Amino acid sequence: MVGPLRTEPAEASLPRVKSLVATDPWKIVQNGFDPVNHRIYESLFSLGNGHFGGRGNHEEAYSGDTLQGNYLAGIYYPDPTRVGWWKNGYPDYFAKVLNAADWKRLTLKINGEELDLAAAEVLAYRRELHMGQGTLQRTFRVRLSSGAVVSGEVLRFISLANNAIGALRYRFTVDADASLDITSLVEGDVVNEDSNHDFGFWDPVEEIAIGTRTIVVSRTKKTEFVCAVGSELQVSVDGATPDHDPVPFTHELTAGAALALTVDAGQTVELVKIGAQATSRVTPSEHVLSECQIALDAAMGDGFDALLAAHIDRWDRKWATSDVEIDGDNAVQQGIRFNIFGLNSTFTGDDPDLNIGPKGFTGEKYGGVTYWDTEAFCLPFYLATADPEVGLNLVRYRHRQLDKAIENAEKLGFGDGAALYPMVTINGEECHNEWEITFEEIHRNGAIAFAVHDYIRHTGDAAYLLRGGLEVLIAISRFWSQRVSWSEQRSAFVMLGVTGPNEYENNVDNNWYTSLMAQWTLRRTLRSIEQATELDADATEALLSSVGYDPETEPDRWRQIIDRIFLPEDPDRGIMLQQSNYLDKEMLTVVDLTPEDRPLNQNWSWDRILRSPFIKQADVLQGMWVFPEGFDLDTLRRNFDFYEPRTVHESSLSPSIHAVLAVRLGRLAKAHEMLLRTARLDLDDYNNDTEDGCHTTSMAGTWLAVVQGFGGLQVSEEGLALNPQLPEGWTRLSFQVLFRGSRLRVTATSSAVEIANEGAIDAELTVAGGSLSIRAGEATTIPR
Amino acid sequence: MVGPLRTEPAEASLPRVKSLVATDPWKIVQNGFDPVNHRIYESLFSLGNGHFGGRGNHEEAYSGDTLQGNYLAGIYYPDPTRVGWWKNGYPDYFAKVLNAADWKRLTLKINGEELDLAAAEVLAYRRELHMGQGTLQRTFRVRLSSGAVVSGEVLRFISLANNAIGALRYRFTVDADASLDITSLVEGDVVNEDSNHDFGFWDPVEEIAIGTRTIVVSRTKKTEFVCAVGSELQVSVDGATPDHDPVPFTHELTAGAALALTVDAGQTVELVKIGAQATSRVTPSEHVLSECQIALDAAMGDGFDALLAAHIDRWDRKWATSDVEIDGDNAVQQGIRFNIFGLNSTFTGDDPDLNIGPKGFTGEKYGGVTYWDTEAFCLPFYLATADPEVGLNLVRYRHRQLDKAIENAEKLGFGDGAALYPMVTINGEECHNEWEITFEEIHRNGAIAFAVHDYIRHTGDAAYLLRGGLEVLIAISRFWSQRVSWSEQRSAFVMLGVTGPNEYENNVDNNWYTSLMAQWTLRRTLRSIEQATELDADATEALLSSVGYDPETEPDRWRQIIDRIFLPEDPDRGIMLQQSNYLDKEMLTVVDLTPEDRPLNQNWSWDRILRSPFIKQADVLQGMWVFPEGFDLDTLRRNFDFYEPRTVHESSLSPSIHAVLAVRLGRLAKAHEMLLRTARLDLDDYNNDTEDGCHTTSMAGTWLAVVQGFGGLQVSEEGLALNPQLPEGWTRLSFQVLFRGSRLRVTATSSAVEIANEGAIDAELTVAGGSLSIRAGEATTIPR
Repeated sequence: MVGPLRTEPAEASLPRVKSLVATDPWKIVQNGFDPVNHRIYESLFSLGNGHFGGRGNHEEAYSGDTLQGNYLAGIYYPDPTRVGWWKNGYPDYFAKVLNAADWKRLTLKINGEELDLAAAEVLAYRRELHMGQGTLQRTFRVRLSSGAVVSGEVLRFISLANNAIGALRYRFTVDADASLDITSLVEGDVVNEDSNHDFGFWDPVEEIAIGTRTIVVSRTKKTEFVCAVGSELQVSVDGATPDHDPVPFTHELTAGAALALTVDAGQTVELVKIGAQATSRVTPSEHVLSECQIALDAAMGDGFDALLAAHIDRWDRKWATSDVEIDGDNAVQQGIRFNIFGLNSTFTGDDPDLNIGPKGFTGEKYGGVTYWDTEAFCLPFYLATADPEVGLNLVRYRHRQLDKAIENAEKLGFGDGAALYPMVTINGEECHNEWEITFEEIHRNGAIAFAVHDYIRHTGDAAYLLRGGLEVLIAISRFWSQRVSWSEQRSAFVMLGVTGPNEYENNVDNNWYTSLMAQWTLRRTLRSIEQATELDADATEALLSSVGYDPETEPDRWRQIIDRIFLPEDPDRGIMLQQSNYLDKEMLTVVDLTPEDRPLNQNWSWDRILRSPFIKQADVLQGMWVFPEGFDLDTLRRNFDFYEPRTVHESSLSPSIHAVLAVRLGRLAKAHEMLLRTARLDLDDYNNDTEDGCHTTSMAGTWLAVVQGFGGLQVSEEGLALNPQLPEGWTRLSFQVLFRGSRLRVTATSSAVEIANEGAIDAELTVAGGSLSIRAGEATTIPR
Repeated sequence: MVGPLRTEPAEASLPRVKSLVATDPWKIVQNGFDPVNHRIYESLFSLGNGHFGGRGNHEEAYSGDTLQGNYLAGIYYPDPTRVGWWKNGYPDYFAKVLNAADWKRLTLKINGEELDLAAAEVLAYRRELHMGQGTLQRTFRVRLSSGAVVSGEVLRFISLANNAIGALRYRFTVDADASLDITSLVEGDVVNEDSNHDFGFWDPVEEIAIGTRTIVVSRTKKTEFVCAVGSELQVSVDGATPDHDPVPFTHELTAGAALALTVDAGQTVELVKIGAQATSRVTPSEHVLSECQIALDAAMGDGFDALLAAHIDRWDRKWATSDVEIDGDNAVQQGIRFNIFGLNSTFTGDDPDLNIGPKGFTGEKYGGVTYWDTEAFCLPFYLATADPEVGLNLVRYRHRQLDKAIENAEKLGFGDGAALYPMVTINGEECHNEWEITFEEIHRNGAIAFAVHDYIRHTGDAAYLLRGGLEVLIAISRFWSQRVSWSEQRSAFVMLGVTGPNEYENNVDNNWYTSLMAQWTLRRTLRSIEQATELDADATEALLSSVGYDPETEPDRWRQIIDRIFLPEDPDRGIMLQQSNYLDKEMLTVVDLTPEDRPLNQNWSWDRILRSPFIKQADVLQGMWVFPEGFDLDTLRRNFDFYEPRTVHESSLSPSIHAVLAVRLGRLAKAHEMLLRTARLDLDDYNNDTEDGCHTTSMAGTWLAVVQGFGGLQVSEEGLALNPQLPEGWTRLSFQVLFRGSRLRVTATSSAVEIANEGAIDAELTVAGGSLSIRAGEATTIPR
């Protein structure tokens, strides 16, 4: 199945919530072997460094149910679209995230019997993901059929300090004298689980096995990315090097080294394996192999311990700006750290060609990597917790793909420089193919325009308008201005045939959120042209001229649309209408559903969902979240009270937005309920699909719920505002915000809010409505 | 590509109309070899007898561009659906019409050189489809590279008198002494052109070659239909049997007989080949081979000439009741005969498991065979021109599939015996898979309900209500009653999320046509229950009880819906609204389009089409066509004048309906323009796609345009009405109508209408508004 719409059951699965991991503030702990949930744990124990990563698979053989997954960022395969029908404008392919060569593979035979925890009697088993230092540790004790008991301890990490490197240390002992056959592999003969007929996406280029060094160079079909994945192995027994060397071997797409030795009972065998990757996405094809060799050489020079130390140091620094502390709610504390860990493992922001896949490096489901999730949900997290360069690279990503967005719009019949960004992409080309989404879920364009504004207002880097921002805004404004049409009947501009964030309605007219984003884009673009002119009139004029901006006609048209775009409302209820015909539906609410109905996407036919009033995720409320200043609390309350009871939250992106809004309305218990749904979505496998991988982009929602919600963080052009409110049970909430060069540590308790300015720049902000300035290095406490 | 939406360019392709065939009242003549248009001619020269048939392929080798096609009615392959996404309710497969074994294949080598018109120098070439007798004749003269000139003459038919039999007589001479290698084949190693990777749908069972008899028995994958296709060959040279016999041979899926002989210059070689087919659709698998053998034995006993005579006699009888004569318009005369020929070749009505595929036996495009075309367009033709059994079998087809329609509705969440008939089917299961069609183009249910009424009012067989009709009506009424929902806002029942006949709008609310058909079905079902009760109260009660009809609740609910279903109108314009939001669109008309825009389905993206006001085919007007008595001429005129200018007629089903309505409005020139588009659609390759096959179901539209349009035929419960009006140029229009046992020949000229009652029953009818009765065997002339 290609490109499923991303839906997840929500509330209905609450009863099924699994208790998978021990609650610990910094660790994810699996205590005891659990083959039934093995895939889920593999997802939870994924590791990545923004450039490559993989699932928490065992290093040694595992004959049980497993989803083997290793992924190289940005390396994809264009699966031909299978849903072309005859409709014009469809993309030619669906970009698949590819399962890549596995550097960590080992096979261990003990007296001729393969070590395989699915086959052995497992006496003890424990895994710990230490989120603070980004390491995965596993200990196990098993009895083989021969009666021998093997104890093992494995430590693994993907280096955050070195994009190319991963490492593992695998120690084990046998309780009897034993002959061992140890094989270390780079296994490049891998397929995607959902590929048809086990179709392989990799063509072999070269396999190298020299001594303990093994490298597989392979090339993706069609896209022709050349990738090298290599490893180096060190073996010792009780600290001593064995008498003879491993014997290298290769076969197609595989390179390995095999060693036979005998050990005495209780001796510790240590296998240190360093992995490395290099791809032609960043290095010329002909240098990929040497790049991989150089990375291995350097890493071997450093050695495992130094690599580990550098890695941990880098995670320390990540956490120093991104950690959120919650006292009094261990479940949420663990959940939000898991989510922050996932986000920072997926995207590090040092490469403007990379983005945030919906499953990060934790699974292969969903093709492509870039959805509107990036701008609408993830960007605020990275802006507030990482260097401005990280956010900048996210907005540059779209600017670099502007030409393709313009081409995409042209395919659909738009012109004059109008851009429609793809619904899903990996290289700027559209790769989703359901007409009601690809052609109609155009609100993504609004989120991408808003991201330019969001980046600038957060970082203060208004000059970015002249480095790309304005071009993106103008191209999107042109799209909106062509996408609306004039309705004589309404005497207004209408936006026909759209799908809003609520994908449980398709092809509706005048989705309020979409039209609101269109109106905002047009207004913001006009304002941005003024701002850019104030900054640098000549450069602005040159830029406008280069994009063929017509000052005679374009701003006029845009102003007409701003003034007369139809934004449906129901004056009787005092609410905005999700779309002009929403009130024609039966006005049921979620309480009218039976447990058998939930989740709707698994139990109802699509047409029934479409004509029902039930809402997949925030839609009107998404707009009220985006523009907190635009709607007074009464308006928000009326809309929340109308829409939330009709929302089934069958998208992992839904509860977080509702949590933020519920805090704004002072409904802290409701907000906490919503937060719980997002914070532990994967840890507790709420949606019964964590086996496919984690909901990486939704992880940002947890941060939003906590920091924008309970922290009351609000960024506007005017500046930063905070308004912490703690739900019952929380004794302390602490987080940091990087904002226009300042670095604020916010600590809220029931009695006070302390704000420490740990940066080098004085900060001006608003706390609970009151203005405040805090000098660099100073702190202020506001009693409540 | 599976299951493309059926669209065809219309007006825009008028300039591309090809002059392919000579205009002749009874023949389709190709004069001169035309390899460029070879596939088109292959479509036009297709032959069939309702049970099997095939395209007009050459018997001998043809290395040029060709679509080889032979089809056995009802033999299909369930291609797995490739568009499942995750949406619930989709069908599991897409039923493909299968290319089957070819009984007529010959290879002829002359002095070692293969006769192949694509390779030879063609000196003369002519083909004639004689529609009157259902024969295809080909004459040719070619020069081979050796310099030898070969003259040939081939006559072929698929017997209308014998479902199992086809025959051909292939005569040729060489202008020099020559050695000949003649091979006769049954070639079962065939694929569908659109199958992936040349995937074969047939597994071999048995190949038989004994003497001149060759049979291939093969089995379809998955569906496991066992089919035998066989042939028998007779060779003579100047009337004498050659000295030695052909040598039989087989290989997988192929059976043949080869003969080498030498001939003198000018000697005539005659190959008579009789073909036969038998399938496990009608015969137990183990008897299929013997069935085929028996058919061949019998046919060989009769001999070619007797088979031909019986075939021609059967066509004579077909034409005796179905012919339409038009004097003064040869183009339309030829066109309507070609269409009637196509309909009668495709469906003979003697098997209630068969139906009318959109391409008949002329091509493999579009899977499945049964669309709403059958009821909405074809049924009136068969009712008026064939035995009542033919129409009965069409309505019985749906009754026999009622259980599956109920299952289909259940998959979508309906219950209590509600039925949703599939959009496309071959065995009662849905096999179309675009949600906006499969789930939403539900007006098909209305057409199927209406067909029950249409059959009864035409034949007078009201007792059919108790033999199936009422069950179908009740099940469809139950569907409508569950499919509507109550809108508080409108204080009416609404029908949300539908796609009307105009597939250029999807997922709209309150499609007027669909809601009208729903209202009509409910009303008609209640009335039919009364009628059935009058006929046989006990049987009716038993039937109602057997389907669990609840007289306490169901009729009440139905009456409420009848009274309060929302049928959108625009009082200002005095028109019905195609759907509640139609007037939100830009009110462009077809004159606003440029030639580059047309046809929209090839030049515009899908979303642009959807939000445009342009209409693919009659929608509101379809409803006014179905219920002529329901709308006065002023209303019809206002709606016609509003909708027709917005209609691009990009469905071959569109012009015919408009033609009928235009005649009603007295706009004979407009009607004639519309008629031309349908009458010669395939002959002139209007849509540039006849190479894929003919538009078989649209052929009925031509008959509707002529007989319902210019003939003014209108059937109602009250009886038969006629009102002939001739467009400019027509001097005479003559057609027959079978109606409730009477048989009327209608002949209209500019000065009079003559109606001859050629049946055995007196007839009552209305002509141009005046009542009339005509005794059996008598005629009446009404001066104009």
